Amino acid sequence: MKRIGHVYLVGAGPGAVDLLTLRAARVIGAAEVLVHDRLVSPEILALAPPSARLVPVGKAPRNHPVPQEKINRMLVDLALEGRMVVRLKGGDPYIFGRGSEEAAELQAEGIPFEVVPGITAAQGAAAATGVSLTHRGLASGVRYVTGHCRADRPLELDWQGLADPDTTLVVYMGAANIAQIAGRLLAHGLPAETPAMAISNATTPRERRLVSRLDRLASDAAGARLDGPVLFVIGRVVWLYREVPADLVA
Amino acid sequence: MKRIGHVYLVGAGPGAVDLLTLRAARVIGAAEVLVHDRLVSPEILALAPPSARLVPVGKAPRNHPVPQEKINRMLVDLALEGRMVVRLKGGDPYIFGRGSEEAAELQAEGIPFEVVPGITAAQGAAAATGVSLTHRGLASGVRYVTGHCRADRPLELDWQGLADPDTTLVVYMGAANIAQIAGRLLAHGLPAETPAMAISNATTPRERRLVSRLDRLASDAAGARLDGPVLFVIGRVVWLYREVPADLVA
Repeated sequence: MKRIGHVYLVGAGPGAVDLLTLRAARVIGAAEVLVHDRLVSPEILALAPPSARLVPVGKAPRNHPVPQEKINRMLVDLALEGRMVVRLKGGDPYIFGRGSEEAAELQAEGIPFEVVPGITAAQGAAAATGVSLTHRGLASGVRYVTGHCRADRPLELDWQGLADPDTTLVVYMGAANIAQIAGRLLAHGLPAETPAMAISNATTPRERRLVSRLDRLASDAAGARLDGPVLFVIGRVVWLYREVPADLVA
Repeated sequence: MKRIGHVYLVGAGPGAVDLLTLRAARVIGAAEVLVHDRLVSPEILALAPPSARLVPVGKAPRNHPVPQEKINRMLVDLALEGRMVVRLKGGDPYIFGRGSEEAAELQAEGIPFEVVPGITAAQGAAAATGVSLTHRGLASGVRYVTGHCRADRPLELDWQGLADPDTTLVVYMGAANIAQIAGRLLAHGLPAETPAMAISNATTPRERRLVSRLDRLASDAAGARLDGPVLFVIGRVVWLYREVPADLVA
């Protein structure tokens, strides 16, 4: 009888290889199969043993992503073959990572699995720029939303609740819709001069960032060379932004 | 002329030593002075070199915490003595960690410093319990607030915005005020049967947790043995909760 394998749903963190957790680095180093998002950096993939099979899935420019249902099934099938499988995702598997959909499938099929958290992009951006996600007197809390929506649906968010000047708002995957998002926040009362930051590839050598204000954020971001997924941070904490060498600033 | 030292503001993560980042483990291993919260686990402190000086600050039961201003000053003074200083905090320095206040003081005094992010308690709790912070159809985003307030002030939060059934609400440091918090959320329309979880010491052998619903959360948490800081997770994602061996459940 074949031994059932084990699946680790692992957060690869924001980009820099040494922002992996020790646990993530250990399980990657023991992987038999590494099913990874295409955006996970080569330096992180290099931690896998030479014998490991690497399977790229997920989104990348000019590539059709593997559908989520197919990824779920792939993880189950590899585990049923007895493999030690690492499913490696940018950031944290349980923050916009669809890790919980994979977990649900594994659980339904009786596959043993564990989740290893990762530093999410907002935390990487904060550490890199000095823009703390909370700060006494500036932000009493922080909120992560996704600016992504299905092409056939409008972006439905609780705009009134989001337009809270006391909360830091972080928008993941918002590049395509940032003009609409900023417009709605302004319409619901967030001041035009609210400081805002756009950042891509935070914590990596490819990091690019710009500081703007809410009413100019969309046009400034559109005019800048921000490659890859863009993270937006909106709120008074952006006043804490620290300057960095000019070649890093978009 | 004396060389100025360097300060690292480092997130110790949620508790488990192997949920430190590689970068955090490296700088702790090179520390000359380790200024640490009292709640950071002995296993993590043991990563410091034997020659390192350990300085406990911050809150612990039956201990007066060192005032924040004094910690800020201590970091500056140690750096001016030329030390390699690691300021180690639970979770992430930039999420309710007051790291940005220390950063502001260091910057004002011209001390070189870096921030190393850490897995925050909400992420540790999610990975440990299967309660994903976001999940398609259950939560389109996640929000972290603090339930702590100064003794002479009421808890002022945007209750209407917080009572959003489509957002996962995580309350840090809320044990003292959870009855008031739950009551306000109910009054602002969050359904009584909204699932909710209380968890302490997530990711450590001392982890304790309970699953309840919003209208019973405060009384259930009060009746349970939850030592140390308690984290509350409120929202439909708590339906994803995975059972664990009974000796871990409060």
